[in-house]
Amino acid sequence: MEVFVPFDVRDPKRRLEPFLSADERRAFARAMLTDVLAAVSEAGPEPTVLATATVDVDAAVEVDDRPLTPAVNVRLTDRPPPVAVVMADLPLLTPAAVRSLLDSPGDVVLAPGLGGGTNAVVARSPAVRVDYHGASIRDHLRMARKRDLQTNTVDSYRVGVDVDEPSDLVEVLLHARGVSRDWLEDHGVCLRTDDGGRVRVDRRPLD
Amino acid sequence: MEVFVPFDVRDPKRRLEPFLSADERRAFARAMLTDVLAAVSEAGPEPTVLATATVDVDAAVEVDDRPLTPAVNVRLTDRPPPVAVVMADLPLLTPAAVRSLLDSPGDVVLAPGLGGGTNAVVARSPAVRVDYHGASIRDHLRMARKRDLQTNTVDSYRVGVDVDEPSDLVEVLLHARGVSRDWLEDHGVCLRTDDGGRVRVDRRPLD
Repeated sequence: MEVFVPFDVRDPKRRLEPFLSADERRAFARAMLTDVLAAVSEAGPEPTVLATATVDVDAAVEVDDRPLTPAVNVRLTDRPPPVAVVMADLPLLTPAAVRSLLDSPGDVVLAPGLGGGTNAVVARSPAVRVDYHGASIRDHLRMARKRDLQTNTVDSYRVGVDVDEPSDLVEVLLHARGVSRDWLEDHGVCLRTDDGGRVRVDRRPLD
Repeated sequence: MEVFVPFDVRDPKRRLEPFLSADERRAFARAMLTDVLAAVSEAGPEPTVLATATVDVDAAVEVDDRPLTPAVNVRLTDRPPPVAVVMADLPLLTPAAVRSLLDSPGDVVLAPGLGGGTNAVVARSPAVRVDYHGASIRDHLRMARKRDLQTNTVDSYRVGVDVDEPSDLVEVLLHARGVSRDWLEDHGVCLRTDDGGRVRVDRRPLD
């Protein structure tokens, strides 16, 4: 199965600012991409990075500088199904979670992400289209209903937790095992558990 | 299997204030409890509410006014295993997610929740203990390692998304199907998708 991993080369993860600087956001986004590519390829398929500009990674790269939605839709239209799209900001992803996603039956398989997003799609019909704006998971379910596509929703924390905001870094520190977590630890990002509610992240000065 | 659902009768979901008033928090917490009890009993076991005070629900109730951790631990010690503990603030829970939790093998099965929590535990050994303070999922994994318990972690969005903060209500509106979602809609809680990032919640005046 062709698995695309869209990646914003230039200005990724803007909502991590000011917790991480622009350079740090780029480096951390690359670390997350590395973890996602590793999880996908350990699960079987060789992933293709769908990048907004040239990028040096250990995977096939297709450069497409259009916004995410048209860049993905052109591939859902042009390539023979099945085609999968897995977001690049899922550092909790494991090969088992990828396998369970790719093995789920249906014309379209959707994995919800925090805050209304769609973190992964498997399209087994050429009628599948994406629209990543707003509450995309709701729009994708509507699209599938309208087009009479047999739909499946994947129930996975490891696929569902994407990293957009500083509070998401807690999940990386607690549940990820790859280079994203190492990157955070190497850059002084740590857990703060003192306020009684959910754990937060903090940053300590490096030696 | 004995399944306990701990429930704070008096002052639940404090971090939803001021988005919801104290009375609203109590009513919404009751709606979430109803959804969790329905998901558990549809999955098979008759759940028992472990409540901080008397409460009128359609399930067995054990009142224990101690804090959550000792109230749960006394049951892990006194009752013959297996014993499960499922949090009351998981309105995305489905019978399928409960079954997959209860069917997972291991001396201890843990389901992580957002922000370091532990949203469900299945204890098949009398050596299992809980401590819900701080990054409890990390502490539970350590406890299991120390006590040489065979451990399993459940990968479920429906178990992993608990409701503590207003942003979590987005998940209820998008992914839940029970009375919690109805309660939010009936009280004017709606999605706000205008800021380009994750979807947020808003409240509109009721007619």
